[in-house]
Amino acid sequence: MGKLPDEKIELLLTTPGTAIGSSRFPLEQEQYEAMVSVLKKHHIKYVLFNGGNGSMDTCGKVSRACQGEDIFVVGIPKTMDNDISIIDHAPGFPSAAKYIATVTKEVGADVKSLPIHVCVIEAMGRNAGWITASSALARKNPGDAPHLIYLPERNFNEEEFLADVKKLYEELGGVVVVVSEGLRNEKGESIVPPIFKTDRAVYYGDVSAYLAELVIKKLGIKARSEKPGLCGRASMALQSEVDRKEAILVGREAVKAAIEGKTGVMVGIRRTSGEAYQIETPLIPIEEVMLHERIMPEEYINERGNDITEHFVQWCRPLIDGDLPEMVSFKDEAEHQLRSRI
Amino acid sequence: MGKLPDEKIELLLTTPGTAIGSSRFPLEQEQYEAMVSVLKKHHIKYVLFNGGNGSMDTCGKVSRACQGEDIFVVGIPKTMDNDISIIDHAPGFPSAAKYIATVTKEVGADVKSLPIHVCVIEAMGRNAGWITASSALARKNPGDAPHLIYLPERNFNEEEFLADVKKLYEELGGVVVVVSEGLRNEKGESIVPPIFKTDRAVYYGDVSAYLAELVIKKLGIKARSEKPGLCGRASMALQSEVDRKEAILVGREAVKAAIEGKTGVMVGIRRTSGEAYQIETPLIPIEEVMLHERIMPEEYINERGNDITEHFVQWCRPLIDGDLPEMVSFKDEAEHQLRSRI
Repeated sequence: MGKLPDEKIELLLTTPGTAIGSSRFPLEQEQYEAMVSVLKKHHIKYVLFNGGNGSMDTCGKVSRACQGEDIFVVGIPKTMDNDISIIDHAPGFPSAAKYIATVTKEVGADVKSLPIHVCVIEAMGRNAGWITASSALARKNPGDAPHLIYLPERNFNEEEFLADVKKLYEELGGVVVVVSEGLRNEKGESIVPPIFKTDRAVYYGDVSAYLAELVIKKLGIKARSEKPGLCGRASMALQSEVDRKEAILVGREAVKAAIEGKTGVMVGIRRTSGEAYQIETPLIPIEEVMLHERIMPEEYINERGNDITEHFVQWCRPLIDGDLPEMVSFKDEAEHQLRSRI
Repeated sequence: MGKLPDEKIELLLTTPGTAIGSSRFPLEQEQYEAMVSVLKKHHIKYVLFNGGNGSMDTCGKVSRACQGEDIFVVGIPKTMDNDISIIDHAPGFPSAAKYIATVTKEVGADVKSLPIHVCVIEAMGRNAGWITASSALARKNPGDAPHLIYLPERNFNEEEFLADVKKLYEELGGVVVVVSEGLRNEKGESIVPPIFKTDRAVYYGDVSAYLAELVIKKLGIKARSEKPGLCGRASMALQSEVDRKEAILVGREAVKAAIEGKTGVMVGIRRTSGEAYQIETPLIPIEEVMLHERIMPEEYINERGNDITEHFVQWCRPLIDGDLPEMVSFKDEAEHQLRSRI
């Protein structure tokens, strides 16, 4: 492939997915070894891996296979799921967080103007609740959406969910609930019963549709579901600026590291202490990253398991470029004016 | 309610839903008559209705009830569904069109970078396919998403759908389909079998989830569904500028008309002939608007019923502020370079 003009390279900043393509093809040990001879044959000295836990695992295995050769292998973290361990957060996540916070605020305004139903928004992240939790950044004033947040880190309890929804519906009229696509019950099974099976896999319905149905059936309250799905990981308009800058930075640092002869490392993101948000990008031995999947720590989840804590909000806020745009409700303004006259 | 400061009024431009609130409460004839005495008692001379077909129907009935009184009733069209008759389009629709076109382009880039599945995006608009059709504006080059578009104006044929999906999957790997939430079969019934009934209503599953399931079951191809739902009518970032300007304009014209003593009219939007896009805002007798629901005309739908026509694209393009942002795919660039060397 020839050299691309700068204006094409610039388009990477506003192109969702990956311009280099991707695959889901699992590699065997012989293939790792075969790769070394292919790289040598073509005089390829630098190999960069861009992705999440799966890609970093592959990155580690390739770097092992290349040991002793004149080949340098470096990982560049990128996963909206934010489940790479050791680092403060992974590039991609801040934009996914900004997306879910923004749409939750917007849907909250929509539901508030016609408060007749319960609206269940489904967020991506099957095993880790980072994205789902970020919806909390939509809140500014008491009563703002999201009113309930359910993460995959906690077993989902239908009775408690229904009780919480009922209480909030009676209070507010319109209720916005944000749930992870991977909610499981106390047995560790999907809360949605399987709808059918093929030779290869079991298929479940959508968590959001299932819960909306449950609200209608058990509480007799109108309910609907929204599942932005891929729209949430592909949105350019709601890209976080912090995220974009950091993604460029870790890519650049990875190239630098490889050229300087580093190998078997991933570029990390570490938040420096101090009041203003700032990061540094240490190189982390890839072996350390390969071992763990990172889920939401207990201190970020409230006791009842239907919300996050202020700790999480403080950690997440700087990643989405600060406050979201303001909105207005004449009902709120009227109430505010009434209160201020008393 | 007191006077709001200008900076609060400005926030209307970036607030989804409606700051004045809304309702779904159907009125009886006596209530229309009672309304007249309430209006007179409070010396209310001007009544403005903002909404779609339902609101314009109410607007017409209130204006009839107020005949002969010193009360002036004017309609301001607004419905993302775009189903108000007579006018070129309704405020709200251009933004919904820009939203669906943008997310289809973005999801298209995502699917292209990992082309392993069929992705079914569900668009709002149960009886009219305007929003679903607008996804076509995502296309720029041959092979771009959306690859198939299904509108509620045509009966849905599952066999043809599966044949079309299979062919495109074999050709492209990743397929993006956009469907209306209200697809019906040749009997006029929802294509999704009912999942349960309450005393008040029958509930159906989501069309997108149903079709993704069908692809997996019948074709053995991976499939998933996205249903942005309310996110699509509440998005501020993807608001159309043309739409925002026109919404302000028709509101202003309605106030002017009422003050000038006009009543029983709705402010219309008529596209002037000429090359550049321009509109005028004639007052339309509300009786004319009340009679019809506007669906996509035949000339905007292709023969097989799995796509729209170039006519539709030409009509719709000016409403979404022209071209969408560009994106880049290294695979496309490589192929392009190869071709240009031959």
